[in-house]
Amino acid sequence: MTKINAWAAEKAAARLSPFAYTTGDRPGPFEIDVRISHCGICHSDLHLIDNDWMISEYPLVPGHEIVGTVQAVGAQVSSIEVGQRVGIGWQRSSCMHCEHCIAGEENYCAQQQATCVGHFGGFAEFVRVDGRFAFALPETLSSENAAPLLCGGVTVYTPFRLYDIPAHARVAVVGIGGLGHLALQYARAMGCEVTAFTSTPEKEKELLAFGAHRVVSSTDEAGQQALQGYFDFILSTVFADLNWMQFVGLLRPKGRLCFVGAPKSEVRFPAFALISGAKSLCGSVIGGRKMIRDMLAFSARHGIVAQTELFPLERVNDALDRLRRNEVRYRAVLEV
Amino acid sequence: MTKINAWAAEKAAARLSPFAYTTGDRPGPFEIDVRISHCGICHSDLHLIDNDWMISEYPLVPGHEIVGTVQAVGAQVSSIEVGQRVGIGWQRSSCMHCEHCIAGEENYCAQQQATCVGHFGGFAEFVRVDGRFAFALPETLSSENAAPLLCGGVTVYTPFRLYDIPAHARVAVVGIGGLGHLALQYARAMGCEVTAFTSTPEKEKELLAFGAHRVVSSTDEAGQQALQGYFDFILSTVFADLNWMQFVGLLRPKGRLCFVGAPKSEVRFPAFALISGAKSLCGSVIGGRKMIRDMLAFSARHGIVAQTELFPLERVNDALDRLRRNEVRYRAVLEV
Repeated sequence: MTKINAWAAEKAAARLSPFAYTTGDRPGPFEIDVRISHCGICHSDLHLIDNDWMISEYPLVPGHEIVGTVQAVGAQVSSIEVGQRVGIGWQRSSCMHCEHCIAGEENYCAQQQATCVGHFGGFAEFVRVDGRFAFALPETLSSENAAPLLCGGVTVYTPFRLYDIPAHARVAVVGIGGLGHLALQYARAMGCEVTAFTSTPEKEKELLAFGAHRVVSSTDEAGQQALQGYFDFILSTVFADLNWMQFVGLLRPKGRLCFVGAPKSEVRFPAFALISGAKSLCGSVIGGRKMIRDMLAFSARHGIVAQTELFPLERVNDALDRLRRNEVRYRAVLEV
Repeated sequence: MTKINAWAAEKAAARLSPFAYTTGDRPGPFEIDVRISHCGICHSDLHLIDNDWMISEYPLVPGHEIVGTVQAVGAQVSSIEVGQRVGIGWQRSSCMHCEHCIAGEENYCAQQQATCVGHFGGFAEFVRVDGRFAFALPETLSSENAAPLLCGGVTVYTPFRLYDIPAHARVAVVGIGGLGHLALQYARAMGCEVTAFTSTPEKEKELLAFGAHRVVSSTDEAGQQALQGYFDFILSTVFADLNWMQFVGLLRPKGRLCFVGAPKSEVRFPAFALISGAKSLCGSVIGGRKMIRDMLAFSARHGIVAQTELFPLERVNDALDRLRRNEVRYRAVLEV
């Protein structure tokens, strides 16, 4: 038995406290043990702590943007070696035989398991996961700044691939936080024309540095009039209820509004708003193993990483408080 | 001056009555005069008569699924000859120079004009339109049965092309009326697996003959449980308010629900329903000139035409009454 020290919520919405659990001595055939060095804090960790999605089990150890060093590997692990630095994201395993898994889109597998749902996550010293869901990190990416790529990065990289957004597209990113500041960088690196919609326009200088060609207030509808019918692709990362029909109006014919963050309230629209310009509302969720590898290679080639605030693991509650207050610029990362 | 006999609504929601108007003696440089032999009745003609969309001008001569013979051509008309049989659909002209027009997607042109909005339509002996929006009809298609292809046909053909629906897709068509019975035929001819959702399952035998592999009640949610997560593409042609989230649940990951008919009420959904399976809600509207030509060639190759009820022009009000009562099987066509 191996004892693992972690931080856990004992019940819904609780502050985290030290928690220890044990695992068997050796990883299973496909499993690996990873000594964690860094773990990003994703907004969905808050949702899990608060049981917003009614899927949480307590004690709950959050954390699914993990970077660490492989300590042990199971007998069937073929592509990962002890001592290697790897990253682990939202998904810890999948069935590996359904139509989605064999198509390299394990993120749609109905049997998939999440790193910190029903399992103990990355706010800890160690984690044991299926080695097929651990990814070698390009050397040029620092562990601190790459950790948020494992969930946040692939969440905003995937929709550009899934929906075939071309380099000539006019792209808008709504909400420039942990996800949005990565989306700006990807869109710019893919050659697109990039607009940042933010509720805090005082961040303009930073957003331009991330790759935006222009910054627009996400709530100033009058100021958005000049952009009616302008965008090919609008990627929304926010949890706030914005006027979504206003954003549909900003789309060109055949344009697409994609949600990677779920607004609190229902989205409502007259179907005619989609029919007349052949527009789409859609979603995207993390990315499969191929997509994560591609995302890491793309990030390394273009120097795309998260801008982070680093906290020692023991200060995890301070980090969560800042995240709840929307003060983090732009992704909190725990150092173990 | 040429006098043209037609049938018009004198005010919103009025029954049609005989009406005559005059045009100049000769068509303009790009215009053609067409002696109408047949004109389909589309549900949107009812919306125009009733001014549901607040764009109608009265007296209003409906009709935008026109087939007839060219009587005269303007000086600049190069691709159409006097005596030729042509079809005309919803769109009578466009600017021909915007980005959409030069891309062959004139249906998105902001300057486009509709055949029977602000112009007198096809419930008449003649019509004068831009010859660039008249289409040669394949010889094997009868005028009566091909007329509904000009709007209804291209409306349901286009989304399969626009959204790249492949032959291996599982397709559902919701609402099997004038649009839906054509959609079943296109989906089947494209090689797809085809399901018909209808509120009148007693039509099952006919719907199977149109190409459906199965027929399902559109309102029996319990009966739809076996089809959860089944479809790649659901095309809705209805104006009724169905449980759209139920239909989103019938989509597979990456599946798409496309509206070509606009339900009366707003569509509402939690964004999470799109995010978790990377699903899309979208729309499509008629088709550009290239799409109409392709649709006609495809229809001729596969023998796809509308099943019609024929009415002499003088009985147009009887035909409209049947359409209002949802009794037409499957498209009413006027014979002039």
